[in-house]
Amino acid sequence: MSIANIKKAAPLVHCMTNYVVANFTANGLLAIGASPIMADEIEEVAEVTAISNALLLNIGTLNTRTKESMLNAGKKANELHIPVLLDPVGVGVSAFRRQAIKQLLNEVQFTCIRCNPSELAALAGVEWQARGVDAGTGDMDIASAAMAVATKYQCIVIVTGACDYITDGQKIVSIRGGHEKMQAVTGTGCLLSAICTAALAIERDTFEHLQAILAEYKEVASLHGTKDMGSFQMEILNELHRLSAGVTQ
Amino acid sequence: MSIANIKKAAPLVHCMTNYVVANFTANGLLAIGASPIMADEIEEVAEVTAISNALLLNIGTLNTRTKESMLNAGKKANELHIPVLLDPVGVGVSAFRRQAIKQLLNEVQFTCIRCNPSELAALAGVEWQARGVDAGTGDMDIASAAMAVATKYQCIVIVTGACDYITDGQKIVSIRGGHEKMQAVTGTGCLLSAICTAALAIERDTFEHLQAILAEYKEVASLHGTKDMGSFQMEILNELHRLSAGVTQ
Amino acid sequence: MSIANIKKAAPLVHCMTNYVVANFTANGLLAIGASPIMADEIEEVAEVTAISNALLLNIGTLNTRTKESMLNAGKKANELHIPVLLDPVGVGVSAFRRQAIKQLLNEVQFTCIRCNPSELAALAGVEWQARGVDAGTGDMDIASAAMAVATKYQCIVIVTGACDYITDGQKIVSIRGGHEKMQAVTGTGCLLSAICTAALAIERDTFEHLQAILAEYKEVASLHGTKDMGSFQMEILNELHRLSAGVTQ
Repeated sequence: MSIANIKKAAPLVHCMTNYVVANFTANGLLAIGASPIMADEIEEVAEVTAISNALLLNIGTLNTRTKESMLNAGKKANELHIPVLLDPVGVGVSAFRRQAIKQLLNEVQFTCIRCNPSELAALAGVEWQARGVDAGTGDMDIASAAMAVATKYQCIVIVTGACDYITDGQKIVSIRGGHEKMQAVTGTGCLLSAICTAALAIERDTFEHLQAILAEYKEVASLHGTKDMGSFQMEILNELHRLSAGVTQ
Repeated sequence: MSIANIKKAAPLVHCMTNYVVANFTANGLLAIGASPIMADEIEEVAEVTAISNALLLNIGTLNTRTKESMLNAGKKANELHIPVLLDPVGVGVSAFRRQAIKQLLNEVQFTCIRCNPSELAALAGVEWQARGVDAGTGDMDIASAAMAVATKYQCIVIVTGACDYITDGQKIVSIRGGHEKMQAVTGTGCLLSAICTAALAIERDTFEHLQAILAEYKEVASLHGTKDMGSFQMEILNELHRLSAGVTQ
Repeated sequence: MSIANIKKAAPLVHCMTNYVVANFTANGLLAIGASPIMADEIEEVAEVTAISNALLLNIGTLNTRTKESMLNAGKKANELHIPVLLDPVGVGVSAFRRQAIKQLLNEVQFTCIRCNPSELAALAGVEWQARGVDAGTGDMDIASAAMAVATKYQCIVIVTGACDYITDGQKIVSIRGGHEKMQAVTGTGCLLSAICTAALAIERDTFEHLQAILAEYKEVASLHGTKDMGSFQMEILNELHRLSAGVTQ
């Protein structure tokens, strides 16, 4: 019943995300009863953020143009006390991404960062065997690194993988039961970021709510029995829709 | 048998549309036997329009670069008497979109505009409670506003929602029976715009043909029984394909 | 067992492709056990290519910005002996595309070009009735044109259609049994290009391996019995996943 809380509020979520997952993200938000709006033109992003209930910044296919747009939207969100979530996709893969994330973290106060262990390592300045935009491997203490990043940037940090972590820098909770199937479809992490962004717009105990959403998202994968991975993207949307099906707005 | 008419002519449709729905639009056009071509580089759009049978301009994720490309393509279409359809996605959400639409409407003669009530209100200069790119609510007289916009811009105006309207400024027809499910999948309106664009390329009584297509598109939703909204995007494509399945090109 | 070879190596594939098929391409590569990474910002592409095992350049929605990025990435790939595949989508439709392909072919040494007969005709300078980004018709001798292009650019050339051809300029092999269904879904050719790019990263006899992959990809279509074309995109992913399901990395 945690994701279902979102439908009651039906938040408008300004999504600045990559073109690989834009359709899946929009349909995922619609499935849970949120309203997505995608816009990345610098001349309009501040206005779009201003009418939205939350802002998602995902750097998956960032370029110099959209970086400036994200900075603009992020600052406007801060000014109007609209929550902002950062998904630092593949931040370790290039100097451009590291630099962009540094600038975003300097100029925008984020409410939440959602990342995988590899991206966390880049944010925390820890050695890690990254592998493109995937999680990779390493023996960083994820919990400590997440708490350090949360403290440094004064925000909630969510790290997802076989075991998820959520921390505000003081307390930390881990959620086990991850399903590796989730890595077999592109954008499942990006969609989770969008769902968490929508959740930030809801007036509840944010930390508890996000924690419950992480647990529920893990179940979405485990409920699904098929071995047909091509169908899995669609099945995730079906499951998400079912979670909120009984809720009226 | 209205959408099926498109397959006989198999028009090439130059789609300048947003990256959220580009894949769904391409597959929807293929499903009905039309050929999509996506291209938005200013150096080539006029050439691509010139070899196409119709042009779609959808501003869903417009930016300053693609705005210039759309103006170029639209003017070339006018020069060569190629039909052009405008989908003014979320025109009310920002000054940038209002300004872009104003410029497009000034410099390009459209054959048809397809929009939702919120976008119509922005075009007609009527007060409306917009909500991002969604329809929103208000008590504008949709029929009168649609006729006024059709008269002002000398084109067919289609407004879709629970009740659809189509008008050329003189006559107006309404089509009831809409299915709210259509709003649960991103891009169903954008795809309808693409299908109407393909229809403009067919030599028939355009108004009657579009009217019949609107009625048929409403049936696509109501024929479909599933409650699984994740599957619905795919089921729309299946239904559209079935409509033309018996037709040979 | 040819596509399944890719999973054993699990190559990281830098995909610079069009926004229409980016999601389908990413999911198709994941389905066969490869790792996609999409990045097109000029400031980072060389770095992303440098950590990848192969590079795909697909010009489906090319613009002046991404053309420069592709040149950068291609040159870095050459410098580091990373294989590069070119998919010259719709090269015949505009002077911009012809010019861009000319520049790419001049400045980057490709390992492989994968195209349809219409694109081959444009590369070979042969007359052809192109039709947008589709194959079109004509009576070019595909085999001779493919061998000429392979010889000129010193690379493998793959031309797909009802009959596929693969040549290195010396030998040529044809593979019959194509399924026209493949044309009913957008991006099936683009995905094949991505799969071939992944295959280039594998240490095997490349020509034999690609030839076997072409044959296997044709079977993906013919194994699938449904008449529901909307489901076919998903079914292709399911079939591709099944091909490698038993393989462990």
